[in-house]
Amino acid sequence: MMDIAHLGPAELLTPAFDESLRFFVDVMGMEVEAQQGGSAYLRAWGDYQRHSLKLTASETSGLAVLGLRASSPEALERRVALVEATGLGAGWHDGDVGRGPSYRFRDPDGHAFDLYYETERYSPPEHLRPSLKNQPQRYTGRGCAVKRLDHCNVLAEDVRANRMFATEALGYRLYERIELDDGTEAGAWMSVTIAAHELIYTADAYGARGRLHHLAFWVDTREECLRAADIFLDNDVHIEAAPSKHAIAQGFFLYGYEPGGNRIEVTTGGYLQYDPDPVTVVWTEEERRLGQAWRVKTVETFHTYGTPPVAGT
Amino acid sequence: MMDIAHLGPAELLTPAFDESLRFFVDVMGMEVEAQQGGSAYLRAWGDYQRHSLKLTASETSGLAVLGLRASSPEALERRVALVEATGLGAGWHDGDVGRGPSYRFRDPDGHAFDLYYETERYSPPEHLRPSLKNQPQRYTGRGCAVKRLDHCNVLAEDVRANRMFATEALGYRLYERIELDDGTEAGAWMSVTIAAHELIYTADAYGARGRLHHLAFWVDTREECLRAADIFLDNDVHIEAAPSKHAIAQGFFLYGYEPGGNRIEVTTGGYLQYDPDPVTVVWTEEERRLGQAWRVKTVETFHTYGTPPVAGT
Amino acid sequence: MMDIAHLGPAELLTPAFDESLRFFVDVMGMEVEAQQGGSAYLRAWGDYQRHSLKLTASETSGLAVLGLRASSPEALERRVALVEATGLGAGWHDGDVGRGPSYRFRDPDGHAFDLYYETERYSPPEHLRPSLKNQPQRYTGRGCAVKRLDHCNVLAEDVRANRMFATEALGYRLYERIELDDGTEAGAWMSVTIAAHELIYTADAYGARGRLHHLAFWVDTREECLRAADIFLDNDVHIEAAPSKHAIAQGFFLYGYEPGGNRIEVTTGGYLQYDPDPVTVVWTEEERRLGQAWRVKTVETFHTYGTPPVAGT
Amino acid sequence: MMDIAHLGPAELLTPAFDESLRFFVDVMGMEVEAQQGGSAYLRAWGDYQRHSLKLTASETSGLAVLGLRASSPEALERRVALVEATGLGAGWHDGDVGRGPSYRFRDPDGHAFDLYYETERYSPPEHLRPSLKNQPQRYTGRGCAVKRLDHCNVLAEDVRANRMFATEALGYRLYERIELDDGTEAGAWMSVTIAAHELIYTADAYGARGRLHHLAFWVDTREECLRAADIFLDNDVHIEAAPSKHAIAQGFFLYGYEPGGNRIEVTTGGYLQYDPDPVTVVWTEEERRLGQAWRVKTVETFHTYGTPPVAGT
Repeated sequence: MMDIAHLGPAELLTPAFDESLRFFVDVMGMEVEAQQGGSAYLRAWGDYQRHSLKLTASETSGLAVLGLRASSPEALERRVALVEATGLGAGWHDGDVGRGPSYRFRDPDGHAFDLYYETERYSPPEHLRPSLKNQPQRYTGRGCAVKRLDHCNVLAEDVRANRMFATEALGYRLYERIELDDGTEAGAWMSVTIAAHELIYTADAYGARGRLHHLAFWVDTREECLRAADIFLDNDVHIEAAPSKHAIAQGFFLYGYEPGGNRIEVTTGGYLQYDPDPVTVVWTEEERRLGQAWRVKTVETFHTYGTPPVAGT
Repeated sequence: MMDIAHLGPAELLTPAFDESLRFFVDVMGMEVEAQQGGSAYLRAWGDYQRHSLKLTASETSGLAVLGLRASSPEALERRVALVEATGLGAGWHDGDVGRGPSYRFRDPDGHAFDLYYETERYSPPEHLRPSLKNQPQRYTGRGCAVKRLDHCNVLAEDVRANRMFATEALGYRLYERIELDDGTEAGAWMSVTIAAHELIYTADAYGARGRLHHLAFWVDTREECLRAADIFLDNDVHIEAAPSKHAIAQGFFLYGYEPGGNRIEVTTGGYLQYDPDPVTVVWTEEERRLGQAWRVKTVETFHTYGTPPVAGT
Repeated sequence: MMDIAHLGPAELLTPAFDESLRFFVDVMGMEVEAQQGGSAYLRAWGDYQRHSLKLTASETSGLAVLGLRASSPEALERRVALVEATGLGAGWHDGDVGRGPSYRFRDPDGHAFDLYYETERYSPPEHLRPSLKNQPQRYTGRGCAVKRLDHCNVLAEDVRANRMFATEALGYRLYERIELDDGTEAGAWMSVTIAAHELIYTADAYGARGRLHHLAFWVDTREECLRAADIFLDNDVHIEAAPSKHAIAQGFFLYGYEPGGNRIEVTTGGYLQYDPDPVTVVWTEEERRLGQAWRVKTVETFHTYGTPPVAGT
Repeated sequence: MMDIAHLGPAELLTPAFDESLRFFVDVMGMEVEAQQGGSAYLRAWGDYQRHSLKLTASETSGLAVLGLRASSPEALERRVALVEATGLGAGWHDGDVGRGPSYRFRDPDGHAFDLYYETERYSPPEHLRPSLKNQPQRYTGRGCAVKRLDHCNVLAEDVRANRMFATEALGYRLYERIELDDGTEAGAWMSVTIAAHELIYTADAYGARGRLHHLAFWVDTREECLRAADIFLDNDVHIEAAPSKHAIAQGFFLYGYEPGGNRIEVTTGGYLQYDPDPVTVVWTEEERRLGQAWRVKTVETFHTYGTPPVAGT
């Protein structure tokens, strides 16, 4: 097993807290597991932890911090030591609702991360008790009924530097990447499991730092992704990109903006990477011009929009 | 166009009104469009009329009456005359919420029907206004989110007599039927459109009269039918038959019992019959023994259970 | 029942006969039911007739003629009389493989149609015999495995004139249409059944006459439509529009060009129109600018490309 | 990463080689990658290695040997040492088509395994070259079009002893198991990745040793699993259990017997186990009586049938 088991919870900032909360509860179908100090802690029905999303009222939007759960206390120690050696560590804090001591650091681009091991597993109240004992929570079917937090795509001024930090200090495996004609790395798709992408870095069009591209929540079927588009439409959620299939990583997607401005993906599909030492797939600038898997031209904002907004754009 | 355009609304009786109402609203995902005199009038999001189901508190379960909308005032007159000639007519009444003058009659087995033409088309309140103007109502996605009433299967002591009444007096077309080795007709699948079944008669195992086998609500995809099974499971709805495919009419099904005891189907699939004069498909006793389309043995209660219950069984 | 039961077979012209034939057999998954005089007669697994597509080698592409099956000999007589009265009739001929006497006429825009009643039902050879007796042919699953011919979209210089001919002389029902700000009719979606569209007229961007926009083949599920996109991609079929959902008629689509240049759709979804006298849905120019159902901008060629090509474009 | 990366290839024995080969090629949609010495080496379109199934003509049916690829040369050494210590090792051999030196051993029940690291990655011939470079092979869509070998379920006289060998000597993680009222372990679901099951042991109803319950091939969607049932039906493949959902591991299944008698599953769904130290889910005898996820009673042969046949049963 890799030292890092998975990402999450993610803390998302929103300047429209009430509307954002309604979006995650009514449209995405998540449950409020806790509320504390201006934040709501939300869970999807398949999350084994108490929550995977912390929503926090703020003056602006963006990703406040991304949690990373280590596989064991020893794995946590190993990774903290490696991060400290890079000089990017910020030190330990007490953790948060549902998890224990956490080590805060920033990647070279400035995104905050919390490494931790101790966590609380979810124990459902009576009205959310599932029928099948291998499922953490009852399936309510509300809204898009997302199952779990799946992956996070952050923007970076320098993709290569951050990708190398993620592979070397954190132990991520690099499955796919984009290399432009001039040698610039424009995107990197990484994972600590056989899932084809968990942590993604793509180039920030404005050269800004510390921004979020999108947070993705999983559904089990493409049909649920299509259904989610109908739900977005009838809930006046801005659809940026209707359901289709990515060429890179082959994920099936739906992109929209939640009321706070953050881009949210409903995702499924892709492939599992069983090869223990796979050759990284490198996409060229020309190949990227072909568009998505089925030759759908990518909408322009997908290459430029991120949160928080960049002043003056 | 046929003289009868489609069936509905159906009036269902339930000895557990509050629980049944919660089932149709929370589990099936229907909306309460009106409430009057101990009855709730419910609609699915794709119904063009105000409602397709009238739920009525009663001492027992079963189908109270099945509406049949005529294609025009002239078509209504024609069919009333044909029914009157059979001696089974009971006369005109004022109609009900959402529809005008109705002619009540009983089929040879005793099931009540209301023939009518005048109807009110649905006009959604603000919170149920759809984004697409060719859709009667917003897609809420709640529960199984059924789209419309699809078909009705009633039980009869004498299938052949009722099938002949339906084809001759009402103008139904017979697409498929079961003929046992001794010549008895055990089931008849009929329609007034290209949809492969709208009105079904099957033999009552107890030789009782006027009973209901099931009422079926449509979803557009098999995935929604599978998802409905998860929703039934986590809402403690008794699943009688998990999703699979019928051999007859090739419909994809999920059967459960609503709290009042009536069998409800979530259905999709099947085929469209474009042939204007198709040869009726006749299934033999031996072919029926093969089970459903994929050789799933039909659960025994499917052949015997109906509502209301038969005394002493 | 309406006087016209359904459309088909369609005769398609191709300047690349061998490649087009391979496309319909290997990619679309159809069977060659007959070959005669430079034409191949192809069927989908759900067609009740012997074939629904006649593919003919030609110097150019386009639709040669569209068959329309009448519901009865009397219905055929009625419609022939109505067409003759318009002065657009061309007279009777002997029919073709699989069907009897046919009455040829042209719509105001010049597209040829054949009205007929007598037809041969398909009788499968041993290797194509189905397991379920209510299915005309074995499901081979090859390629996109289309089930049947679904609808035809022709281009017209004057949509309104042709739409009125179709409703008045042929008895089509008009379910949806586009009316531009200047009052021009830009599209009309019509049907003779509860299926939301069978015959579509849209405006020819070049003002040319007699051209084809696309021929659509049905699959039962959206998943099959998504799968068809993968098959198109890996068979080097030009994908013009990847799978998504139309606003008008709500059909789920995939559009590509077959090797002869004709646009072919793999389609599913939509709605059934049970209302016997529905109010026609009218889309404005502004509403059309919103794009498809999920706000996907329609690709430009979709508004201009047709077959045969217009000289000088 | 775990020391063992994944299972495969599997070598399957068949007394009806030609018919079995046709089944895996035409019905399952696999490709023959090599043929040598009475064996065919078959691949699914998503396999990164040259093949995942070796089919060998034999006097009887069953699983000859199951390959296990190590994550690295060091991981291979570690596991060989651990296995040797148990006394169950049989020694090194040269490997087979597509893979290098392999260490043969038997589990306590007698099933043969080959541990190896060196492998050849698949390089497609021109006609199987994919359009997307992150996919090993073109998607042909033929038959069930299975994507890759997913998991293997073997039968054992003593489930607990074999499960402990797998977790201790091989490093498998135990996600779910069945414990009968008398304390007997009746089944164990194990994995070396986040996929909910890769290697399964269930009790042999006859107390026989070394037998196979089933080999499972993956498809990405439940719709493909439903479609596979239609393909099985129209290819006269014996369907033992029509598509439905398991309670244990929540996999969606279709079970049939290939012509050589071995049980084959087309599978999808389930859940990913991201928890690095999950509590094993234990199912009781009573819970197993509830049937599958949607309360479908499991067909009796599923509890008894395995290959090769047990003499005298």
